[in-house]
Amino acid sequence: MRQYSLVIISLFILAASISSSQAQSFQGPRADIDQILEKANAFSQAFIRGDHDAMTALYTVDAKIFPGKADIIEGHEAIRERWKLPKGQKILFHKITPREINILDDHAYDYGYYVGQTQLEDGKQVSWKGKYVIVWKKIEGEWKMYLDIWNRVE
Amino acid sequence: MRQYSLVIISLFILAASISSSQAQSFQGPRADIDQILEKANAFSQAFIRGDHDAMTALYTVDAKIFPGKADIIEGHEAIRERWKLPKGQKILFHKITPREINILDDHAYDYGYYVGQTQLEDGKQVSWKGKYVIVWKKIEGEWKMYLDIWNRVE
Repeated sequence: MRQYSLVIISLFILAASISSSQAQSFQGPRADIDQILEKANAFSQAFIRGDHDAMTALYTVDAKIFPGKADIIEGHEAIRERWKLPKGQKILFHKITPREINILDDHAYDYGYYVGQTQLEDGKQVSWKGKYVIVWKKIEGEWKMYLDIWNRVE
Repeated sequence: MRQYSLVIISLFILAASISSSQAQSFQGPRADIDQILEKANAFSQAFIRGDHDAMTALYTVDAKIFPGKADIIEGHEAIRERWKLPKGQKILFHKITPREINILDDHAYDYGYYVGQTQLEDGKQVSWKGKYVIVWKKIEGEWKMYLDIWNRVE
């Protein structure tokens, strides 16, 4: 009987910890949330394809990105250049997991984690994990990233 | 005459570069903008004093901060711990320069640059410069940081 209780308690703790680590809070109209989730996924897929035009189109024309060890980078042309990888490198995997999306009329903010894997010129594969905050703007019905800042978890 | 023109042109370029590097866009009620500017300054002053309670009080109770090489840190207790410096270190200088503040009813976003100087245990002084994005929430008339993410420029 004691063992049975321990199993129940363990399962309860496990379930609580899983639900806590995956906790997501999405506030706002479902259509807006869904579109932002689609755009985040489209960013990852374009990054994997090396499609810099598709990546750039997900930003407002006056967007700012905040890469580490660099100045604030502003506007489509500069953003497109920034997302070009060093020669011989390739993104093998990229996934964004929002923890919160909050729609505020025609703005939204969103934060969470991302994971990725890069193949280097010598064939080595390196994995990375980071966290981000994005401020979105709705431009003629389309959600686009206006501010995009991130840094590494490890 | 040619020298005179060169001076005029140089002054013009200087003025343009100053106004560009200091360009600030503040949108929203003046009282809200002013309070956010005051809070940003209060953060710097508390950081210099080593006043972790005052720093923590500038965040919502459910705030999240995003330091480099760390997980997302959430809530007052964890945030207070994170702002404690390694033994023997002291902040000599800290200044936040917002480039844009946009008030969206009871939320706001803000991005810009920060500079600071730390004195290490051996007396050495190191300067640093970074960029940040903050999402603010207005709680009972008080603007508080809800999301605070940054990374280094150099």
